[in-house]
Amino acid sequence: MHERNYAIIGTGAIGGLYGARLQKAGIDVHFLLRSDYEYVSQHGLIVESIEGDIILPQVNAYKNISEMPKCDVAVLAIKSTQNPALLPQLKQLLKDNGIVLVLQNGIGIEEEVAQIVGADRVMGGLCFVCANKIGFGHIRHLDYGAISLGEYAPNYRPCGITERMHQIGADFEKGGTPIQLAEDLMLARWKKLVWNIPYNGLSVVLNARTDELMADAHTRLLVEKLMREVVAGAAACERYIPDSFIQKMLDDTVKMKPYRTSMKIDFDEGRPLEVEAIFGNTLRLAQQAGIQLPQIAMLYHQLKFLDAQNRRKQENQLKIS
Amino acid sequence: MHERNYAIIGTGAIGGLYGARLQKAGIDVHFLLRSDYEYVSQHGLIVESIEGDIILPQVNAYKNISEMPKCDVAVLAIKSTQNPALLPQLKQLLKDNGIVLVLQNGIGIEEEVAQIVGADRVMGGLCFVCANKIGFGHIRHLDYGAISLGEYAPNYRPCGITERMHQIGADFEKGGTPIQLAEDLMLARWKKLVWNIPYNGLSVVLNARTDELMADAHTRLLVEKLMREVVAGAAACERYIPDSFIQKMLDDTVKMKPYRTSMKIDFDEGRPLEVEAIFGNTLRLAQQAGIQLPQIAMLYHQLKFLDAQNRRKQENQLKIS
Repeated sequence: MHERNYAIIGTGAIGGLYGARLQKAGIDVHFLLRSDYEYVSQHGLIVESIEGDIILPQVNAYKNISEMPKCDVAVLAIKSTQNPALLPQLKQLLKDNGIVLVLQNGIGIEEEVAQIVGADRVMGGLCFVCANKIGFGHIRHLDYGAISLGEYAPNYRPCGITERMHQIGADFEKGGTPIQLAEDLMLARWKKLVWNIPYNGLSVVLNARTDELMADAHTRLLVEKLMREVVAGAAACERYIPDSFIQKMLDDTVKMKPYRTSMKIDFDEGRPLEVEAIFGNTLRLAQQAGIQLPQIAMLYHQLKFLDAQNRRKQENQLKIS
Repeated sequence: MHERNYAIIGTGAIGGLYGARLQKAGIDVHFLLRSDYEYVSQHGLIVESIEGDIILPQVNAYKNISEMPKCDVAVLAIKSTQNPALLPQLKQLLKDNGIVLVLQNGIGIEEEVAQIVGADRVMGGLCFVCANKIGFGHIRHLDYGAISLGEYAPNYRPCGITERMHQIGADFEKGGTPIQLAEDLMLARWKKLVWNIPYNGLSVVLNARTDELMADAHTRLLVEKLMREVVAGAAACERYIPDSFIQKMLDDTVKMKPYRTSMKIDFDEGRPLEVEAIFGNTLRLAQQAGIQLPQIAMLYHQLKFLDAQNRRKQENQLKIS
């Protein structure tokens, strides 16, 4: 059996956690880093995890894609806001049959990647995980961890389950990551949005953790209304999500440890928010399908305002320092 | 001609400004105060105004309604969040033909007052003014200033223009306040909501002044969408507001000096927000009329959450101090 090697494009919470798990399983992994490069190339990676810590004193660290060996699977785990700078370099990184696995949040990113590497070389993955990067080369894995894998085809046409999904899934499972294989990537992405849209959005706008949003009757209701609007958007795109899924997301979140969402962390750290990938693309898909999503649109406008204010604040701080 | 005397129930930005103007015009005015009582009873009131300052070294100051003389017009200018404590005492304050003039924001408050003093003894007034209280007995009047007066009748049935509207309007005009007489108080209240709902709501949720909301393309659009939803709610209640009114509100706000809304000031000062009067009552009226206002409902839920958080923060600070 062919041994696949992996390039982790972006060694943050997601890339760090799943890349470390792959390496721990004996797979050949190569990590792209930016601000953590110096530290990680000397000291490696640490994943502090509820499922047991992973300590990797040595990893293959790179500062530029051009220095990385060609690989079978490039795991796209940077923030989607950085895509414009990095996507054009992905093609040179892939072996002839190499593919890109998009682990980013939101919807519609596979399409952008497909324009560069070809639609038959793109897969998507949805991470159901609570994890943060808490220091140089230091990831904290708090809760959950499964990935849902799906093949991409133009217009998100459902592709069923392929042999390479099984193979890549098996690699991740070897590292301890539960894998679901999705026959329809677009349905999987809409299902993930049911969680991401309310919690990522409201956590930033209302400066709140998941537990605070669930403890207040008003925000709990608003979360549910937003979830219903996501489900309506999905239905307009002929992807049907049952009511029971909403209830499960609500119940799971109540049971979850108090969590600061990835978008809230980005906001607090002064990083650009993934508003377009998660909210903008969702609204555009819904609009193409002929449906308005007024509450999601409102959250989108609020986040665009706060993101712009935050960017301006960052620029001013840079000028001062 | 009968000389009317006035009781100003709540000497904040609104009560202080309009009460001072009435007294300056030679009218007999009595001010109810709470935290400012000691200071104002000794030093009087100052209104710093774009239209010329008003300095009143001596005013009739009271700490309790029970100490005030019976009056012709009780001007209700406390925050509506304080209504439950004060409304029951209003009846004893009025002369036989005395009336209550409700200058509070929102909609539906006249109905509550009518239950106490009788529907034929209630008028409403909409203040189009930028003013803040900036210290003990110290009001700053920044911009605009007109009041739109209207008679109340059960279910906000339009009442036309009455003799006592002319009389009370003339008193305010004597003090330099431009007065419009509204034939339909409910229409006037819906028109005021066209401004209050987007700007009061978003200023709190997004921590922004009016100029910031208008300078950003996303919030400017969101303001306009919210205004359209208010107009739709009004239409469901058979009150018709032309598109040109929305444009005028947007244009006026752009021209306005950068303004921190009254709700934002309440929030920053840790005071309860008038969420029910402005948002809750609007949503209930719309629902009774059979229409959903999803964006306003979302703003309502967001504000209820932030208000509850703010209340809790205040209580914790009180415990610590």
